Amino acid sequence: MAEPTPNPPIVPVVADADAEAKPDGEVSKKAAKKAAAKAQKEALKAQRAAEREAAAAASGSAKAEPSEDLAKDNYGAGEPRLSEGAGDVHLRALGAGDVDRVVVLRAWVQNVRMQGAKMAFLELREEGNWAVQGVVAATAPDAAAEHVVSRPMVKWIGGIAAESFVVVEAVVRKPLESIKSCRVSELELHIRKCFVVAAAPAMLGMTLAAANRAVTNFSDEDAAAVVAVADKAEDKADKAADSAIPAATMLTHLDNIVMHKRAPVQQAIADVRAEAKELFRSYLRSKGFKEFEPPCLIGAASEGGANVFRLPYFGQEAFLAQSPQFYKQMEIAGGRKRVYSVGPVFRAENSNTPRHMTEFTGLDMEMEIQKDYSEVLLMLEGVLLHIFRGIKELCAPEIELIRSIYPSEELLLPEPGKEVRLTFAQAQQLLREEGPAEYANVSDLEDMSTPQEKALGAVVRAKFGTDFYVIDKFPEAARPFYAKLDPAAPQVTNAFDFFLRGQEILSGGQRINDPAELEGRIRAKGVDPASAGIKEYVDVFRQAGVPPHGGGGIGLDRVVAWYLNLPSVHLAAYYPRTPKKLSP
Amino acid sequence: MAEPTPNPPIVPVVADADAEAKPDGEVSKKAAKKAAAKAQKEALKAQRAAEREAAAAASGSAKAEPSEDLAKDNYGAGEPRLSEGAGDVHLRALGAGDVDRVVVLRAWVQNVRMQGAKMAFLELREEGNWAVQGVVAATAPDAAAEHVVSRPMVKWIGGIAAESFVVVEAVVRKPLESIKSCRVSELELHIRKCFVVAAAPAMLGMTLAAANRAVTNFSDEDAAAVVAVADKAEDKADKAADSAIPAATMLTHLDNIVMHKRAPVQQAIADVRAEAKELFRSYLRSKGFKEFEPPCLIGAASEGGANVFRLPYFGQEAFLAQSPQFYKQMEIAGGRKRVYSVGPVFRAENSNTPRHMTEFTGLDMEMEIQKDYSEVLLMLEGVLLHIFRGIKELCAPEIELIRSIYPSEELLLPEPGKEVRLTFAQAQQLLREEGPAEYANVSDLEDMSTPQEKALGAVVRAKFGTDFYVIDKFPEAARPFYAKLDPAAPQVTNAFDFFLRGQEILSGGQRINDPAELEGRIRAKGVDPASAGIKEYVDVFRQAGVPPHGGGGIGLDRVVAWYLNLPSVHLAAYYPRTPKKLSP
Repeated sequence: MAEPTPNPPIVPVVADADAEAKPDGEVSKKAAKKAAAKAQKEALKAQRAAEREAAAAASGSAKAEPSEDLAKDNYGAGEPRLSEGAGDVHLRALGAGDVDRVVVLRAWVQNVRMQGAKMAFLELREEGNWAVQGVVAATAPDAAAEHVVSRPMVKWIGGIAAESFVVVEAVVRKPLESIKSCRVSELELHIRKCFVVAAAPAMLGMTLAAANRAVTNFSDEDAAAVVAVADKAEDKADKAADSAIPAATMLTHLDNIVMHKRAPVQQAIADVRAEAKELFRSYLRSKGFKEFEPPCLIGAASEGGANVFRLPYFGQEAFLAQSPQFYKQMEIAGGRKRVYSVGPVFRAENSNTPRHMTEFTGLDMEMEIQKDYSEVLLMLEGVLLHIFRGIKELCAPEIELIRSIYPSEELLLPEPGKEVRLTFAQAQQLLREEGPAEYANVSDLEDMSTPQEKALGAVVRAKFGTDFYVIDKFPEAARPFYAKLDPAAPQVTNAFDFFLRGQEILSGGQRINDPAELEGRIRAKGVDPASAGIKEYVDVFRQAGVPPHGGGGIGLDRVVAWYLNLPSVHLAAYYPRTPKKLSP
Repeated sequence: MAEPTPNPPIVPVVADADAEAKPDGEVSKKAAKKAAAKAQKEALKAQRAAEREAAAAASGSAKAEPSEDLAKDNYGAGEPRLSEGAGDVHLRALGAGDVDRVVVLRAWVQNVRMQGAKMAFLELREEGNWAVQGVVAATAPDAAAEHVVSRPMVKWIGGIAAESFVVVEAVVRKPLESIKSCRVSELELHIRKCFVVAAAPAMLGMTLAAANRAVTNFSDEDAAAVVAVADKAEDKADKAADSAIPAATMLTHLDNIVMHKRAPVQQAIADVRAEAKELFRSYLRSKGFKEFEPPCLIGAASEGGANVFRLPYFGQEAFLAQSPQFYKQMEIAGGRKRVYSVGPVFRAENSNTPRHMTEFTGLDMEMEIQKDYSEVLLMLEGVLLHIFRGIKELCAPEIELIRSIYPSEELLLPEPGKEVRLTFAQAQQLLREEGPAEYANVSDLEDMSTPQEKALGAVVRAKFGTDFYVIDKFPEAARPFYAKLDPAAPQVTNAFDFFLRGQEILSGGQRINDPAELEGRIRAKGVDPASAGIKEYVDVFRQAGVPPHGGGGIGLDRVVAWYLNLPSVHLAAYYPRTPKKLSP
């Protein structure tokens, strides 16, 4: 089975003499550094000169040679013809120990540059941000027949369209200078063979450099929703090269989905997202949670029928689930102590903003409460802190790369034992006393607006030094009928929201598990307990005794977007769905 | 944070003298066994008599006592009042070391039986198939006040409706006889306190015993689709008790979803399913695959428009994805080497059979091909064998339980290195030569029917001793336009199906990665390359060079159902969706 192994069978070759050159003599550190830099510069010059000479010789001799291209088997389109024993490598596994070895790399050409007519430089990129410099130079006429690089071969390689997929056979060398444009900066590949397996078009719809720039316009129709994002972290040289290209809109990115996805920044975001999902699952599994799958197709609108997608279904009407809430509770009623699910949820909301999508991913959990609903709150706080700390540790290079495109301040998290949990009333008091003047009269009994939430986020960050906090005991008016009222203070609920950088990422709380109590709350909210969907919901609690329980739902897209301080959830999604955009 | 820990703080109490009673003297093994059995029987008799006496005494004294119930704080509905320091336990963690300790158990009452007026036996069940016997007996009048069990308390407990959720405080004792009706057979709980946290109705819509019987009728309207399943493994005593209840139809099970899910057999199936999913993910992650999420809402019917759900979408039309195929390929085009996804897929097929659902779960993967598409085939074979072997090891008790309701033969798997991989032509030859006479003339160029597949499964099992095998090189006519033709034999494709017990569980193969070749195949299949969905698909391969790749999709519901030999995929799903059934 062909699997990516760190470094498979490899063929050692004789080392280049000059690659080993080192300055000697004892000198001051600074002087030594200077001398070394100078020596390196000169050695580089000498090497390039030698390579040019060799190439010139090759080229010169070509004129005298028969018209046959001696390198003709070493390059071309189609099936690669490689040397026996040359081993496949992955750039992330390539190290100093590989110097002088013959390797095979399967990669995208992200850049090609001819140097004269006899030498070319390539940037070869693998998945993620892994790239290496490739060098191809025409060999002298006396080179071993199997390792001939002819001038036509160099020219052909120099003409490969960017973003073509190639297989190269090359010798790993230590470059004389670090190659700053590539993540593999201390090694380069001296190419002996090069085959284009899949050619890109001569003109890309979007270059990789353009795809890797910050997206600032997320409108799906006009420029009204433009979100300004500082471009300051972007490399100046890159800017100079790209100055003719205005920052592309999200629509342009989606029209060029292949290049959008190839951009290192998007690959890094996708990596962070996948890791966040896995951290959610593994943490809950370790706490005894079982995975289940709620349905997407449902027979009644789960939350009152607003913003729900409807579809014809064999003579009936079906709806797309807006949340797995009902089904999570059914799992608890059905005998599970703790469950979680990860899956799509749908909102038919005609909102054209960087915060909205019509399809997104919910990370949901529900658990039996033994003594108090704080068990649920603490479990959810625990899993989110686990995700945040885990991403920071596991995705450090990805986060650094993303920050270079979308700048963000370090996410402040509470020390263990110093988590910030405010009641809604405490949060409103904080906003009145320490927030902007316009919030001097906010009520403890009305829900917060999005601007209020953001203002509170700033106050909490300044006061408690955290970007992640909990607001508990939401007022009765702000929560749905199934929220359990606080028995000690029935104007509030045993329900909470979690915030990240001042934006909501989670809603949760204790649910009513007694059917009579539930029916009372449904009536109190002015809903008919006999209406479609509601009756079936209450009846579940009549089928058999259901223990007290609670849970919460996390919006994965928002967690990723706000954690990374992205200007839109559309960048955090694999295939964002908005009212106007259903493809790709 | 309240988490399920194996055995939290516990309070030791004085041991019952008779629980320690042992026969002594050296005798022959058989005689010793016999003597022990006799002694145990007598001790049991004596214990029960003593308990009855004590209860009678309590009851007698009650008449003389004031009308106040001395045990009134030890039972009732609502908030449990428990002793300080009594620790929560989970039945799966309860062991011999817990004997004589005071524990708290939160569980469902699955059975209550009064023995006279002064004693009651309960079966207490936790998640899964974990149950323990609880005993409550009225105490003598001289019992410590806090541990009083009064006759009214026993009577009240004896009247708890089955499937109520209770919290009990009890002393763990070793029973004199194994309790065959409970999974925890070597311990019982002597109850001191009992509180009903959530009451079940006096009459259940479906009893647990009924819910745990084999479902044989999966029709969603009439008896036409009844699938006969042998009931032979069912316990005879159980049968006698339930003989009045005819086996319920799947519709009845779904109408009583809470009890359906509480049935140990359904909990075991759910456990196997969750484990299969996790094994899929962890195996592919270990091979360098990255998770991604394909969308459900799409702008064009992905597979020609047949059997696709359509819905209005802000003035456009949207479709529900029938497979993530297109998006898996887009991930490869977008720079990933290996990806997988787990999520819902939809088929608007009006098929009322135990093999069909309108929403099911796909386990999908796609990978770059380095040298040959057999890399894909071997990876998929590897992950499925990993799932099958993993389930067998991790879910042995669950499989045993499921077999007691839905009998199945041991699944035969190939020895490592002896995997069965036939070409389609070889499979047809086998069918012609060794299959039923009616298949003596099957063609190498036409797809197999479902009965043919099953017949082949029997031949392969008999000949090669495996229930899992691969059929490769499907004829061109049997595969969609995107399947790569075998360059050496273009009448067949580099595409395969995997089979389990003679039924297809996976389709996969190499995809065409060259846009011109793809367009040629689309035309050859009589489709217009400019049609909706098709054009966008081909254009992805024009955006940039896409390496050779392949993958496959596994139907999770079918894998679980056929692995366990269930009579229908509806039993393997959490919430089966059929043309007539959208709830619960």
